[in-house]
Amino acid sequence: MKVGTHPTAATHAHGTVLTSAPQDAPVDRATAAARRVVDAMLRTDRGNANLDRVAEELNSIADHLEEHAPEVAERLIDMWNGEGVTRHDPVTGPENAIAPPLVLEGLEDGSVRGTVTLTMPYQGPPGCVHGGVSALILDHVLGVANAWGGKSGMTAKLETNYHRPTPLFEPLVITGRLVSVDGRKIRTVGSITTADGQLCVSVEGLFIDKTVPRPR
Amino acid sequence: MKVGTHPTAATHAHGTVLTSAPQDAPVDRATAAARRVVDAMLRTDRGNANLDRVAEELNSIADHLEEHAPEVAERLIDMWNGEGVTRHDPVTGPENAIAPPLVLEGLEDGSVRGTVTLTMPYQGPPGCVHGGVSALILDHVLGVANAWGGKSGMTAKLETNYHRPTPLFEPLVITGRLVSVDGRKIRTVGSITTADGQLCVSVEGLFIDKTVPRPR
Repeated sequence: MKVGTHPTAATHAHGTVLTSAPQDAPVDRATAAARRVVDAMLRTDRGNANLDRVAEELNSIADHLEEHAPEVAERLIDMWNGEGVTRHDPVTGPENAIAPPLVLEGLEDGSVRGTVTLTMPYQGPPGCVHGGVSALILDHVLGVANAWGGKSGMTAKLETNYHRPTPLFEPLVITGRLVSVDGRKIRTVGSITTADGQLCVSVEGLFIDKTVPRPR
Repeated sequence: MKVGTHPTAATHAHGTVLTSAPQDAPVDRATAAARRVVDAMLRTDRGNANLDRVAEELNSIADHLEEHAPEVAERLIDMWNGEGVTRHDPVTGPENAIAPPLVLEGLEDGSVRGTVTLTMPYQGPPGCVHGGVSALILDHVLGVANAWGGKSGMTAKLETNYHRPTPLFEPLVITGRLVSVDGRKIRTVGSITTADGQLCVSVEGLFIDKTVPRPR
């Protein structure tokens, strides 16, 4: 993410939304619908939902979308152009059906915070969030916390600690906060807790102040 | 995962497939088609692909799938019944459109290994795999490596180290191996390398021999 185009705790108000808010745009509506399909596919009756017909319809939609897709190199330039906050990442991206998507706000104490309820596609142990999904979400949240702290870096090390199983189907509170900067080393922490404050997962990240150039 | 129902390095041949192989079944075909939609949605021309019509069609499919979905509690019992290997997890599950899906084999040296090419939905930095996606994949691979080693446990700690950006759109080699068992503590390592052997991500996991009961 480009530093400078991002709101930071030093310049913006408590409660500033730091992720791409869903817009009233066709691509956001189509992606939200795709997200419903991904979820419902895991829940539907395998023997009684005429899934061969569903496969045909989905392949027909995929064909249509692909027919209107530019070359990947061209698309990459376009998707990284413009606003500083990505709309396509797998955690907060309104245009990515893999993303729950998580919405994060910057708080005046320097932390970032969001609430998300995860469903069937994110399952690991029975009825619980996959441990790797928790790591995915927290890695991303630490990056957003870095930006709110006025920094930007590549993940060098991520230490994720699992304290208790993280439940599906109920609101989870996700937080992150930049704790120190030492030369190019940025240290950031985060957590996933239940709504009543039980700590499920905590994370410590080390980031190096270096970014991958945008395609152009 | 249930220990005892899984093939292990002690009982099974080099090259045994440890993940759910895609089947010639309607649900696998429908999920593969949904995966195509998720990917193509990120690549298609936002202004020229009639995405409001696409949203209508996808919502209609989601409505249909939901009309044929049992209650979540009932579905959970069903999805955790039967074969030891899950078909619905977000990394290897043929029935989960979020999963690439990754196929893993058990090798006679005790390690597990698979190859996967990741595309647009898994992007973090421009043209690169999201660091959290690498953690998600490796967490799951360590669990499969534990099973191949004859063990099963919940993730307690996952330390992920990022050595260089992990490229999208080219084959990545994913490995895992149980390295030690000390009482209930299981230690397992894994990595993501490019096809020509460059190390992108390495991981060390600590697992505790304890499982979440299956719903019934």
